[in-house]
Amino acid sequence: MGRKGRISEPAEVAGNGLLDRRALLRGGVVLAGAAGAGAATTGAGAEPLVDGPWSNEVGDAIPPYQTASRFEKRVVRTVDNPNNEPRNSRARTPHHLLKGIITPNGLHFTICHGGVPDIDPARHRLVIHGMVRRPLVFDLAALERYPMVSRIGFVECGGNSAPLFSNQPIDADVQALHGLASCSEWTGVLLSTLLDEAGVDPKAVWLVAEGADSPRLSRSVPLAKAMDDAMVALYQNGERIQPGQGYPMRLWLPGYEGNMNVKFLRRVQVTDQPALSFYEARTYSQILPDGKAYRFYFLQEVKSFITSPSPGMTLKEPGVYEISGIAYAGTGRIAKVLVSADGGRSFAEAALQEPRLPKAFTRFRMPWRWDGGPAILQSRAFDEAGNMQPTREQFVARRGQTSRPPSVLGFPSQHFNAITSWAVDAEGRVHHVYA
Amino acid sequence: MGRKGRISEPAEVAGNGLLDRRALLRGGVVLAGAAGAGAATTGAGAEPLVDGPWSNEVGDAIPPYQTASRFEKRVVRTVDNPNNEPRNSRARTPHHLLKGIITPNGLHFTICHGGVPDIDPARHRLVIHGMVRRPLVFDLAALERYPMVSRIGFVECGGNSAPLFSNQPIDADVQALHGLASCSEWTGVLLSTLLDEAGVDPKAVWLVAEGADSPRLSRSVPLAKAMDDAMVALYQNGERIQPGQGYPMRLWLPGYEGNMNVKFLRRVQVTDQPALSFYEARTYSQILPDGKAYRFYFLQEVKSFITSPSPGMTLKEPGVYEISGIAYAGTGRIAKVLVSADGGRSFAEAALQEPRLPKAFTRFRMPWRWDGGPAILQSRAFDEAGNMQPTREQFVARRGQTSRPPSVLGFPSQHFNAITSWAVDAEGRVHHVYA
Repeated sequence: MGRKGRISEPAEVAGNGLLDRRALLRGGVVLAGAAGAGAATTGAGAEPLVDGPWSNEVGDAIPPYQTASRFEKRVVRTVDNPNNEPRNSRARTPHHLLKGIITPNGLHFTICHGGVPDIDPARHRLVIHGMVRRPLVFDLAALERYPMVSRIGFVECGGNSAPLFSNQPIDADVQALHGLASCSEWTGVLLSTLLDEAGVDPKAVWLVAEGADSPRLSRSVPLAKAMDDAMVALYQNGERIQPGQGYPMRLWLPGYEGNMNVKFLRRVQVTDQPALSFYEARTYSQILPDGKAYRFYFLQEVKSFITSPSPGMTLKEPGVYEISGIAYAGTGRIAKVLVSADGGRSFAEAALQEPRLPKAFTRFRMPWRWDGGPAILQSRAFDEAGNMQPTREQFVARRGQTSRPPSVLGFPSQHFNAITSWAVDAEGRVHHVYA
Repeated sequence: MGRKGRISEPAEVAGNGLLDRRALLRGGVVLAGAAGAGAATTGAGAEPLVDGPWSNEVGDAIPPYQTASRFEKRVVRTVDNPNNEPRNSRARTPHHLLKGIITPNGLHFTICHGGVPDIDPARHRLVIHGMVRRPLVFDLAALERYPMVSRIGFVECGGNSAPLFSNQPIDADVQALHGLASCSEWTGVLLSTLLDEAGVDPKAVWLVAEGADSPRLSRSVPLAKAMDDAMVALYQNGERIQPGQGYPMRLWLPGYEGNMNVKFLRRVQVTDQPALSFYEARTYSQILPDGKAYRFYFLQEVKSFITSPSPGMTLKEPGVYEISGIAYAGTGRIAKVLVSADGGRSFAEAALQEPRLPKAFTRFRMPWRWDGGPAILQSRAFDEAGNMQPTREQFVARRGQTSRPPSVLGFPSQHFNAITSWAVDAEGRVHHVYA
């Protein structure tokens, strides 16, 4: 029961201070850096605790719906269209302030093409029609009676990380660069359950999903995906899907680009060909260096980025820090994440937090002793299908880069999944670089 | 790709309409009940969709922190001390309105003995002292540098379900009866990591954990538990722990009764004996039928309850419904959940939603065809250690029951984990009964 308190120095496992990921989890290692940062030794028996006012007065009443501490007001999404001008609106997840794999509902990323609609769930309907034997219409009460499934998984905008297509590194934080991906527990009815009841025509190959918001965003989805793991999602982290996520229901296609996961879902039309809708043929098409474009490009490929340390943070002094980040793959489970502190010259394997769920965020962690000198931090993820996150050099050779601002139509901006590099300078400041 | 759309009648697997749990997941089963409830067949090609105003006007701006739809205002915790009178305050999770295993942060249950303190995290300290070689004090910045872990798991108040100690069934809903249990992804530093650094005296056997709120709630924790899986939790579902959960940090002891998971954690004193503190010796002691009490009773034992259908709901018409609920055990994973629709005369095995994580909620599901007659729904969980949820009769024989209101000191009110029964009457109304 009592601990020996062995003092040992964790072994370096890769260049520039990466430490054995097992060393720090147990075994009496003294984290000298952390101690110096605040864990000061006190005299035996001495008590440095000083009562704050909260220790001497009654606290507040418990509210019916709990909200964050007033000291956490900075933990919000960044919104790029606060005045709701007639264009896209985006809200980005603050990954640098979050830990774990679940994105709380208040902070899930959102993109809307016509604002967030205020839908009365009692009046909303979902129709399945087209190449089916029995067209069906569902209200929410009907869907509630169907067998449901729950699954933890990510949604990522096809345009997430678009700033990294820039030919010069954009000095921004992980929220601005990678904030259009989030992960939740989704609960709803498998689309296959509903399609089976409707009776799909054997000649059908596609479906076209349409939302009830004013842009009536529609996307074509291969029927094979619909019958595999597509969900009509009604709940997000236990409670009803929130307005920015498609209230009262959305299509969820695990691992497929965000905008295919049609929010405010009201129609599933079973067809024998894709619709080539506005959003799939124009907005979310992927331009290639030779001027051609992928006709369809559904899958969000294996990817990772470090959330801590990350731009905007400053390391106060040399010592031990935890490098932590998230990895995910639209193909399935993450198999491995490598971390480098020397810009990719050497790598060591990070610890992966269980559970490692398919098509979900996986949290990785790596202890690191910063020596006070320059460092370049990178992570590189591998999925179980054997795919490896590319270097940025490999990626842009295939997909191109641009001197235009990101998201300008006609320039590459979709499905960036290459390695991200954070430079730590001698003052401990962290910046986005290409390395 | 195309589906044959086989029409089949799902097989009954236990009395009073329980259906094969695999039958409805795929295979063209017509859910006649659900269709009748709203999934009406329309003419081929006809479109019953009518645009709501939200389809024809621009929606709202995306807010920095997303909140639920205005149509979901009833999805809140019930609070039993809204005017913050000088007594305990409780807020209960609305399980009947939630699906999945994650409780969103706004709806996690809370119990406070002196209101919710408004703690400035910059001034909060955690001290580890007592029988250690090096007493340590940590501020939040120091803890942030330590290796962290994430884990999905439940917290349950020892007094959850106390109304079921009543010798007459109390006509209340699942929120009132079982709302003092919730499940989150917690992220923080293992307490063993910090204790290892402090260097625990081999003669130490206990620790005493103390909170920074005005009651300074303290509880004794076996050192073995502390070194096993105890966590100083800093994050809850990704974001900082909320005020009602112990902001800026709480002790989390997976599977142990709620009040031991000391919120607002400021002190861990390593000792060779328990403190026999007010809260452990009085408030949370468990009185037995012979007038004696357990000295300590930490573990939340294997338990389950049905969340849908549940009291307050009315089944509109005979047909197929999904019976769904949650099961959990402080010992580890849930192995099996049996469901009965005939008050325990016959049972069938429910589907368990993956992932089944140890000491976490596990969602179970069972299709049921209600014939319009009376039914009594029950669930019975088994953990992987071989423990079985007792019947209420077995339970009260060991632990007693009372004619007093629940939570009256001196009467049994702790660790109720027996089977809960919901009666469905011929009008489809659901009520709590003993069966």
